[in-house]
Amino acid sequence: MGEFELIERYFKRPPQRAQVGVGDDCAIWMPTPGQALAISSDMLVEGRHFLSTVDPAALGHKALAVNLSDLAACGATPCAFTLALALPQADDAWLSGFAQGLWALADAHGCELIGGDTTRGPLTIAITVWGELPPGQALLRSAAQVGDDIYISGVVGQARMALEVFRGQLRLPSDAFERARARMERPTPRVALGQALRGVAHAAIDLSDGLLGDLGHILKASGVGADIDSRWLLHASDGDTAWPAHCPDLAALPWAQTLACGLTGGDDYELLFTAAPEHRAAVLAAAQASATPVSRVGHITPAGLRVLDPQGQAIDVSSLASFDHFA
Amino acid sequence: MGEFELIERYFKRPPQRAQVGVGDDCAIWMPTPGQALAISSDMLVEGRHFLSTVDPAALGHKALAVNLSDLAACGATPCAFTLALALPQADDAWLSGFAQGLWALADAHGCELIGGDTTRGPLTIAITVWGELPPGQALLRSAAQVGDDIYISGVVGQARMALEVFRGQLRLPSDAFERARARMERPTPRVALGQALRGVAHAAIDLSDGLLGDLGHILKASGVGADIDSRWLLHASDGDTAWPAHCPDLAALPWAQTLACGLTGGDDYELLFTAAPEHRAAVLAAAQASATPVSRVGHITPAGLRVLDPQGQAIDVSSLASFDHFA
Repeated sequence: MGEFELIERYFKRPPQRAQVGVGDDCAIWMPTPGQALAISSDMLVEGRHFLSTVDPAALGHKALAVNLSDLAACGATPCAFTLALALPQADDAWLSGFAQGLWALADAHGCELIGGDTTRGPLTIAITVWGELPPGQALLRSAAQVGDDIYISGVVGQARMALEVFRGQLRLPSDAFERARARMERPTPRVALGQALRGVAHAAIDLSDGLLGDLGHILKASGVGADIDSRWLLHASDGDTAWPAHCPDLAALPWAQTLACGLTGGDDYELLFTAAPEHRAAVLAAAQASATPVSRVGHITPAGLRVLDPQGQAIDVSSLASFDHFA
Repeated sequence: MGEFELIERYFKRPPQRAQVGVGDDCAIWMPTPGQALAISSDMLVEGRHFLSTVDPAALGHKALAVNLSDLAACGATPCAFTLALALPQADDAWLSGFAQGLWALADAHGCELIGGDTTRGPLTIAITVWGELPPGQALLRSAAQVGDDIYISGVVGQARMALEVFRGQLRLPSDAFERARARMERPTPRVALGQALRGVAHAAIDLSDGLLGDLGHILKASGVGADIDSRWLLHASDGDTAWPAHCPDLAALPWAQTLACGLTGGDDYELLFTAAPEHRAAVLAAAQASATPVSRVGHITPAGLRVLDPQGQAIDVSSLASFDHFA
């Protein structure tokens, strides 16, 4: 199967909104008048971002999900994407599964595949996605303000739990492992929540490298600090957010592992965002409108990053950065 | 050097037209009102598209050039690009050279780097570029009409000559080799010509896979055929195009090799385009306005692809597809 046959078979469908889609030198796209574009690129490399044994449908899902998650973090509405794919060989079953996972998520978000490239090489997936939003309404890392509440969507830490099981550093009951693995392999980009937070949230970021690391990007860009109350990892937060969520599987681990997975585990693709305390009702409404669990986990301070343990004592954050809790 | 330091050091500059550039979840970009977007992605993989020994500055140039060439083939004006880069290691000298080659070409075309991704992995470069053009004016593969003249910009075949020298299949005088190598490593995207051809040319494509193969995409998409007069490989065409160009180094090879390099050699990144005979003066004006040599090399027919030798006899085109001429 040559490059052109491969594209024709798996990655070409009639253009929807695109004026010209897959198959010319460029795709041609007419932007919505008056809307700004939000654009993001992510690259996944075998052995670094996924294992060779991963279900190709899950990989197709995840490759697009991590990009949609960036749009969500800006509050943009997905439009379209390009796919650049290096493959060691053109394997029919693999490509069929990969394309199925990719199309299913793309269709769920009305996000059109409009072009790309395929070549032989070590398995690598590079997607560039763009979306639209009203000018000036993008949620940026630099917009956090002192006194803002800090929220996260969904639950964090399960992707890291699954990774530690694969690494042989953690044992889980099989049902807990399957839940964790599903979260690692098929993350849910919080696209509807991101859009609902336009005009409500100040700063936002998606959690790909771990909560503390990604929060650090907001703190640096905004010139502020934060206090995080780790009690939300053990039980649901105090009721002023919709479906306050916590993860019983994570809470069941020894406390050091709960903290390590919850605060430094990556690959969650949840949103972390800040909003003024007077917007708590609006955050609740955005969470409900997008059917997305949201927990309030701390607040923005003038400087420094503190994580408080369930007794209200500051935890040594630097000790969380390493993986030694599983050794 | 970590990922964020690497981006900060080599790939981050203050945004120009972008409202938000490198360093947030998404770049934010305001399209020009009333303009369509042209978007293209290309991926280069070490060992397949370039050798590990290539000058990193040349690689930085080429990685963007092949993408700008796609914009040129549609007649679009470059705006911005994203860069996804997998690197085996963060080598300062390599990154410095790569970035220098990339920025030099980006600046020459006013094309802004607005985001991307870096990760550890086998050396792979995926760029997505976009440009703007008036709606309905994109040069498409499907627009060739029977009777159209066929033109190519610049000269073709030298990139292939350089490749065959590297493969040990061809020997060249050192000055001819250096000229060929420069064409292979630092192709010139014909951006100004592409824009000048809007409203003048019908179909266009950029030559990445070889003249006959890429012409084949136009013929298939347009439902037409073509006659190519191979005499232009030996001497300049007949004077109705600006700076009719041929390549003495290519013409100096044995005829079978001239034909193989000129008609099936890839990596030239010249434009092949078609235009109505009544637009010959307009094509000449576009070539002059963009300071780009253009040669008229054939015409569009109702069906079939014929290549005529200097005596006007049809050449067996299928015999050109292989590399055996160098064996």
